[in-house]
Amino acid sequence: MKRIRISELLESKEFGKEVTIMGWVKTIRRSKNVSFIALNDGSCLKNMQIVADAEKIPADVTERIHTGAALKVVGELVESQGKGQINEIQAGNIDVLGEADPDHFPIQPKRHSLEFLRENAHLRFRTNLFGAITRVRHHMIFAIHKFFNDRGFYNIHSPIVTGSDAEGAGEMFQVTTLDLQNPPKTEDGEIDFSKDFFGKATNLTVSGQLEAELAALAMSQVYTFGPTFRAENSNTSRHLAEFWMIEPEVAFADIVDNMDLAEDMLKYLVQYALDNCKEDLEFLQQRLANEDKQKPENERSMPLIEKLNFVLENNFERITYTDAINILKNSKPNKKKKFNYVIEEWGADIQSEHERYLVEKHFKKPVIITDYPKNIKAFYMKQNDDDKTVAAMDVLFPQIGEIIGGSQREENYDKLMKRIKEMNIPEETMWWFLDTRKYGTVPHAGFGLGFERLMLFVTGMTNIRDVIPFPRFPKSAEF
Amino acid sequence: MKRIRISELLESKEFGKEVTIMGWVKTIRRSKNVSFIALNDGSCLKNMQIVADAEKIPADVTERIHTGAALKVVGELVESQGKGQINEIQAGNIDVLGEADPDHFPIQPKRHSLEFLRENAHLRFRTNLFGAITRVRHHMIFAIHKFFNDRGFYNIHSPIVTGSDAEGAGEMFQVTTLDLQNPPKTEDGEIDFSKDFFGKATNLTVSGQLEAELAALAMSQVYTFGPTFRAENSNTSRHLAEFWMIEPEVAFADIVDNMDLAEDMLKYLVQYALDNCKEDLEFLQQRLANEDKQKPENERSMPLIEKLNFVLENNFERITYTDAINILKNSKPNKKKKFNYVIEEWGADIQSEHERYLVEKHFKKPVIITDYPKNIKAFYMKQNDDDKTVAAMDVLFPQIGEIIGGSQREENYDKLMKRIKEMNIPEETMWWFLDTRKYGTVPHAGFGLGFERLMLFVTGMTNIRDVIPFPRFPKSAEF
Repeated sequence: MKRIRISELLESKEFGKEVTIMGWVKTIRRSKNVSFIALNDGSCLKNMQIVADAEKIPADVTERIHTGAALKVVGELVESQGKGQINEIQAGNIDVLGEADPDHFPIQPKRHSLEFLRENAHLRFRTNLFGAITRVRHHMIFAIHKFFNDRGFYNIHSPIVTGSDAEGAGEMFQVTTLDLQNPPKTEDGEIDFSKDFFGKATNLTVSGQLEAELAALAMSQVYTFGPTFRAENSNTSRHLAEFWMIEPEVAFADIVDNMDLAEDMLKYLVQYALDNCKEDLEFLQQRLANEDKQKPENERSMPLIEKLNFVLENNFERITYTDAINILKNSKPNKKKKFNYVIEEWGADIQSEHERYLVEKHFKKPVIITDYPKNIKAFYMKQNDDDKTVAAMDVLFPQIGEIIGGSQREENYDKLMKRIKEMNIPEETMWWFLDTRKYGTVPHAGFGLGFERLMLFVTGMTNIRDVIPFPRFPKSAEF
Repeated sequence: MKRIRISELLESKEFGKEVTIMGWVKTIRRSKNVSFIALNDGSCLKNMQIVADAEKIPADVTERIHTGAALKVVGELVESQGKGQINEIQAGNIDVLGEADPDHFPIQPKRHSLEFLRENAHLRFRTNLFGAITRVRHHMIFAIHKFFNDRGFYNIHSPIVTGSDAEGAGEMFQVTTLDLQNPPKTEDGEIDFSKDFFGKATNLTVSGQLEAELAALAMSQVYTFGPTFRAENSNTSRHLAEFWMIEPEVAFADIVDNMDLAEDMLKYLVQYALDNCKEDLEFLQQRLANEDKQKPENERSMPLIEKLNFVLENNFERITYTDAINILKNSKPNKKKKFNYVIEEWGADIQSEHERYLVEKHFKKPVIITDYPKNIKAFYMKQNDDDKTVAAMDVLFPQIGEIIGGSQREENYDKLMKRIKEMNIPEETMWWFLDTRKYGTVPHAGFGLGFERLMLFVTGMTNIRDVIPFPRFPKSAEF
């Protein structure tokens, strides 16, 4: 079935040429002698205008055409008289491949709430908004692979089902084939996981980092890009139970190399979006501006493309946690107790409101905070000589706060072991991780980028459920 | 920490230049006045030879160097006297970043069984074999994204946790946060899944196809590339409980377009491997030849690179199931009852032995079989006019048999609904899938490529557990 994609045809000036396009009707305007149909095939935001003269296209065909119907159109490419379009198609023949009953098709040409579209996630790809988001999402996926491939990194598929909860990054989902109604029990009355599929209790992964470390300590430069899971009952616009994460891991790298890599990667991705998704970003910018009109002026966002350039044009400010706390402690909103969490002393958690203050008000740049107190960070992070902090880093962006978290890893076996014991990590499930510190250990570092956080930033959307095709959250696993 | 990757240095003739490299020791040969160290950093198969003169590198350093140790070497790039290498490094300074106790490090420079390496999957990346497989795997991942990106397809992340078992492709893993010891029950004594995280029973996906169809019926051309799961207790060299799958889905496409896409894609991927993984493929070819020496002549494989060219150089033979059955029925091995499953009549399943006969003996080409009996295929496949067959296709390769399975999809609501009822598919969980046949339905088609099957083919490995970093199979979810 040969067709030409609308994205390839829109700029064409081969007037007089016969073309075949297929797609779905966005709108149809009818009059006695002629109907105008806007057809979209997902290849780009713009529609192709089809002119259906009553002389050529019989009324019994045009009567069947409504928003959402699928058409095959054969016709002549002609110069358009309309504004903002080069060409249109004078239809010679229209096949209605599939109708869409206007009384029932949910995606009518009017404003739908994001909530309504989420409930119709199977059809929301047909809207301008989700078409744009889907294209941007694809380009960001490809850009991530290209960035790492061009630099000699290897993509590693870390396992999804794991037998360890080493990272302790959050609540986990259990994976089992046991009969829940009547599970096998041990003599002590406990669930007998030795009878489960994997011969032990297993969960969905919360991070591929530990496995990425194994690979990096042989291949030097690797990255994962896969789904990760949190069984936390957070019904917020910032959390998903299932989300995608990118985790590079680099041998022979310290925290400074790690910061350089994170900054390079984010700038590359933003530049790629500007270069490859211009039309969709302009549409998303307009959407954001419209949404912001409802808000008080001080809560409005920077225009989307300005915000993307803000990342490109600024060197990320690099400061230590200790310096950040001092800045925050002495800041106006802290003194006036405008923060929900007033910063009182060293050791405090830096909350989202503080991150945004540092980025948007204080530095007016993206910020990387390093050297956090060891007590608020994971066991595997490299311990600094001060015995108080670890070589952790968080990259903070406007609007969304933390976009990346990472660290140099503790490569010293004895120090790592001490920390594992202090933090009661089940040592016996970690033998393979510890082995890498026994045999040819080297300094290494890595970080995690939540893909949907990046998508929020690049698209200007504000609810994370709107930047993944089929969101998973408490009480919702539809589609 | 600045270093140059060994892959970048191996061809260099900048003799006299000071360079810094870091990596892991493959072997060390010692003599009184000089030691020769082969160092590998994972960037390529080849090692860099380090010459450590006793005059410059003190004995207390070289004594600490064993297979598996990590080194930082600063030295002068000099012309090599050795065969097969252009240069080597005359070490000026060696830092032992991490030692490896020769009495305990498992990966010694000798032949290890694949089984032993599987048990040490955390360290097997350090072997030549798994370094090569990891690089080839990465290049195949990237090539898949590049193939689709270049053709205007969008990558869709289909959900991993699902509430539906529509495809019926196999046994599923349950995903739950319920307390297995003491799960909530309904008044009838059943497990009360309304109290589970997602408010209903959920499983790990067996395929992203149905969701890919949703996206394709708006974006026109999409593909998924993600993990899929089968809870089948198959302890074989061909099955994994967790594996990665590529599933393109194309609107306005029929079964012929689908065959064209599959053939184009496979040829592209094989060509990409030949272009980008030459050194590793030659190594893998040698490994396969060594392994085959143990086998009787008639069980030996084609040389690896010859087998890859076999795919490139032949047009895939396209035949119907009916023709295939006739060929098989009249074949010598069938008449002599050499097949384990003798083909008696139309309707029989075509087994792996039959697939290989058609490819390797009869046609001597890759083969695509189409139009299978509807009773042995899934509910969503397009029903042919004969009322007996569906527009399914399987692509068959030498050695591995089926590498791709796909079909044109049934786009007619009434026909699809009839089939759903006949096959007792739970209709109420499928409302969203059925909606796409109600609103703007179009002919469309797609297929699934098991990524590890492709990896078996490209690497010549014979056990699927050896082509994924951390295999998951019955009783095994280590690492």
